[in-house]
Amino acid sequence: MDYNYYMLIALEEAEKAEQIDEVPIGCVIVYKDEIIARGYNRRNKEKNVLAHAEIIAIDKACQKIGDWRLEDCTLFVTVEPCPMCCGAIVQARIKRIVFGCKNVKAGCCGSVLNIAQEQRFNHQVEIVEGIKQEQCSEMMKNFFKKKR
Amino acid sequence: MDYNYYMLIALEEAEKAEQIDEVPIGCVIVYKDEIIARGYNRRNKEKNVLAHAEIIAIDKACQKIGDWRLEDCTLFVTVEPCPMCCGAIVQARIKRIVFGCKNVKAGCCGSVLNIAQEQRFNHQVEIVEGIKQEQCSEMMKNFFKKKR
Repeated sequence: MDYNYYMLIALEEAEKAEQIDEVPIGCVIVYKDEIIARGYNRRNKEKNVLAHAEIIAIDKACQKIGDWRLEDCTLFVTVEPCPMCCGAIVQARIKRIVFGCKNVKAGCCGSVLNIAQEQRFNHQVEIVEGIKQEQCSEMMKNFFKKKR
Repeated sequence: MDYNYYMLIALEEAEKAEQIDEVPIGCVIVYKDEIIARGYNRRNKEKNVLAHAEIIAIDKACQKIGDWRLEDCTLFVTVEPCPMCCGAIVQARIKRIVFGCKNVKAGCCGSVLNIAQEQRFNHQVEIVEGIKQEQCSEMMKNFFKKKR
């Protein structure tokens, strides 16, 4: 599986968020080497806490697969997921998370907590980090620099 | 705030889940002493991992309030929330979680993790537990007994 390729598509999704003045985070879900769902952060636009990139993509992936289990899927996201999104990933039994840059304040793939690999839950997720890290991180930094 | 009263309504929601053969968990969200959203577990029916009682209620509450922040809300749920739902509660900055019985396998208000009160996140949630505990617990036990 070409991690760089899929992360570039996740970055394209993140750009869509940036264009509507949302924190630039993008996500794609891959099943059998095919992108089955995409999402970008729209929390402010939708005025809905559930409109994180990952939740939007997971919702679409469930509809596409026709199951709440996304067992053989890999989720690509530009920034380390928050507790809600990591929890959804574990609940959906997603096989692997690939993320770009860390989220030191709220990331739950090891930065604050490691929900994705908590041994007491009934599912643990493989984690790959640092794919297109610089690009993902720069996009976040530039966004918050403009905001200030 | 009459915790017992609102938990009885959450139990009514849980009964709706039981009637469609779903794990019987129900939720209500209260704002200024008014129920603004209800939800019951529909994960199998919807074939969607996001169809937990709490997520359904949070979605509706955001639409009702017109904001992703649910800061002055109290969420009542019959069973201790999972990591996804606890994460969503923290993200939405909900003031207080009131739950009935513990979930020792996946609960994240203290049983496995305490996501709701993790000091490193930017929001901590007040937790009240054990309201109508026996009724909430019996409903779960009976459901799983019938399943076996």
